[in-house]
Amino acid sequence: MRNVITLTTDFGLQDYYVSAMKAVMLNIAADARLVDISHEIPSQDIMAGSWILKNSAMLFPSGTVHTVVIDPGVGTERDPVALKINDQFFVGPDNGIFSLLTSDKDYQAVRLTNEDYWRENPSNTFHGRDIFAPVAAHLSEGVPLDELGDPIDELVTYRWTVPIADKDGLEGMVIHIDKFGNLVTNITEELLEEVIGDKQVRIYVGNTILDEIATTFGKVTEGEPVAYIGSSGMLEVGINKGNAEEMLSVQKGAQISLILQKESQPES
Amino acid sequence: MRNVITLTTDFGLQDYYVSAMKAVMLNIAADARLVDISHEIPSQDIMAGSWILKNSAMLFPSGTVHTVVIDPGVGTERDPVALKINDQFFVGPDNGIFSLLTSDKDYQAVRLTNEDYWRENPSNTFHGRDIFAPVAAHLSEGVPLDELGDPIDELVTYRWTVPIADKDGLEGMVIHIDKFGNLVTNITEELLEEVIGDKQVRIYVGNTILDEIATTFGKVTEGEPVAYIGSSGMLEVGINKGNAEEMLSVQKGAQISLILQKESQPES
Amino acid sequence: MRNVITLTTDFGLQDYYVSAMKAVMLNIAADARLVDISHEIPSQDIMAGSWILKNSAMLFPSGTVHTVVIDPGVGTERDPVALKINDQFFVGPDNGIFSLLTSDKDYQAVRLTNEDYWRENPSNTFHGRDIFAPVAAHLSEGVPLDELGDPIDELVTYRWTVPIADKDGLEGMVIHIDKFGNLVTNITEELLEEVIGDKQVRIYVGNTILDEIATTFGKVTEGEPVAYIGSSGMLEVGINKGNAEEMLSVQKGAQISLILQKESQPES
Repeated sequence: MRNVITLTTDFGLQDYYVSAMKAVMLNIAADARLVDISHEIPSQDIMAGSWILKNSAMLFPSGTVHTVVIDPGVGTERDPVALKINDQFFVGPDNGIFSLLTSDKDYQAVRLTNEDYWRENPSNTFHGRDIFAPVAAHLSEGVPLDELGDPIDELVTYRWTVPIADKDGLEGMVIHIDKFGNLVTNITEELLEEVIGDKQVRIYVGNTILDEIATTFGKVTEGEPVAYIGSSGMLEVGINKGNAEEMLSVQKGAQISLILQKESQPES
Repeated sequence: MRNVITLTTDFGLQDYYVSAMKAVMLNIAADARLVDISHEIPSQDIMAGSWILKNSAMLFPSGTVHTVVIDPGVGTERDPVALKINDQFFVGPDNGIFSLLTSDKDYQAVRLTNEDYWRENPSNTFHGRDIFAPVAAHLSEGVPLDELGDPIDELVTYRWTVPIADKDGLEGMVIHIDKFGNLVTNITEELLEEVIGDKQVRIYVGNTILDEIATTFGKVTEGEPVAYIGSSGMLEVGINKGNAEEMLSVQKGAQISLILQKESQPES
Repeated sequence: MRNVITLTTDFGLQDYYVSAMKAVMLNIAADARLVDISHEIPSQDIMAGSWILKNSAMLFPSGTVHTVVIDPGVGTERDPVALKINDQFFVGPDNGIFSLLTSDKDYQAVRLTNEDYWRENPSNTFHGRDIFAPVAAHLSEGVPLDELGDPIDELVTYRWTVPIADKDGLEGMVIHIDKFGNLVTNITEELLEEVIGDKQVRIYVGNTILDEIATTFGKVTEGEPVAYIGSSGMLEVGINKGNAEEMLSVQKGAQISLILQKESQPES
């Protein structure tokens, strides 16, 4: 049964927007279980929304319907869409928000055109309440995907900066900074394994240099920086019981360099 | 069946207040579906709470019980009340918080006096946990409104500034600024239709002047200001993919003037 | 039946952390009712988390499972634990987070060692998703506590500063400041009754002096400071319709002194 509906928006919680969506959903899917993924996505930050979704959505039970409204182009030419990836459903604007999810997975998608599943007289400014919420609720009630509109072959994709690997090592970027100030990079565990493996490496990020990739925070003294593989499978840099964003003076978008060291090179 | 209970407070989520209310509710109404409308209402801002409720509460399924605790006068002479508007129930302090909902609708209200439906030994400082939460849960379980206390004829009303219409046009106010910096005014779509219609108008707000009311953001270039009818049915001013509050230097309470233009008047 | 699961973390809501935990829980306990206590605990502030739990957890229905992840030592030597206090269950790191709950109550506790109830290949950095969430969900589904690991006799305790009582009165501390700026102290109603009773007292806190303990805010004029017993049973200092933190220039950790007055002493 499809009865979990999640919500991911940049609406914040001080306005009526999220609750209006939930009200609309509950009128259609009275037994749906509504789960907030986040409403604190930075305003109109499609990439940040895509990152949160990638790390959370596919963990939900089979049949979950994910409603995603980060929609700087509401009321303009971007299409409202619904898609299915494995056994999960997604509803939202076709503006790249789903690109990290679809980059390595097959999907079926439709452009939302069947107004029977919308609220009457939808506004131009709040498709979350008037299109996406009711469509998500109908999906959760078992309406088939292809009932909602016309199939489309390819969704808009948003390009994620990829790390550069060469004979000297890896050049990556800080793509996300979490609430604790941990720096999440675009360097995956697999890439690290392939390019660096167990070779000696020196890591340059912000105002610090690190000499190894540890297994966890606790490997360094309190207040010391540490590189490790985070829970999203990406290389991260944090401070044991501290805030790396502040202490290393690093912002989102900053460069991180992993330079392979010659065995004979002095450590100075 | 009445099984949705919503919560609207100015408690924030960093304290135990909201969860204590939910705990009390779940002891009485084990199957209730608890939905947060907002806990981020600015502290003791009755008008902001009333605005959120007006745009969200009536969308919920029939029989929903809305618990509202924005209560600067807790423990003093203001009455705790419950009311029914159409098929929705409301519980909270009688301090004007319900005035935007009741301004154009009939309602039945009672002063909460029947302590059988309260927690034992209610505190003077947390009626949310000790009076409003248990009363809301009992209502949701089917207890009739008139069982909860004595009928009252009229609730406290809080006066909303109304726009002024004259032969020159309309003079309104920014009553709310949302998370995106969009400016919501007190000018309704109906009033606009009546006073302005399709006559030429010039709109003065903050440091900008606009020449028309568009149907949506996308009608202007990115970074340009635009006036449109928002999802609450009010005239709003926003910036396409930008923040109007910041870019137009406008704060809550600011004036917005719509001046009717003579057909022959030059545009300079 | 055990079907309420609460979550208390310092994860905030802008990341995928909370939703990943909920996703894992819903895969195991499809009918669980997930209730957020707070995700806005200040980062790694064990004491603040313990305070919120103390004032909320025990109010929940019998059989509730409370998942608590404020875990500065994740991946290091601190033990993951589960415990039962009266008819409530708790899951989290053994770092003192449960100490205010266990200080005056009996409990049974186990060290989590049975990996059958964990996610496969748990990460070193996100035990919330990989250990605590699945264990909480299994507990909620009826798995007995002693199935989860080995019994332990005593949990780590975190010492709360206790007030000092002497012949001159009471010396306490501001242990929490709520969203409204109300100052919560470590002085309980019982201690006040015992040391001060109905004797004349003068209260020194921040830049103000108070002459009595009132029953509620409304006992003073708007904008005036007032001392009263708060909803947690502790002495608090607030401002009627104002913010005591700002107006009295008081921070968490500040001293509050209650000095007994001689009957004959002049009020000047």
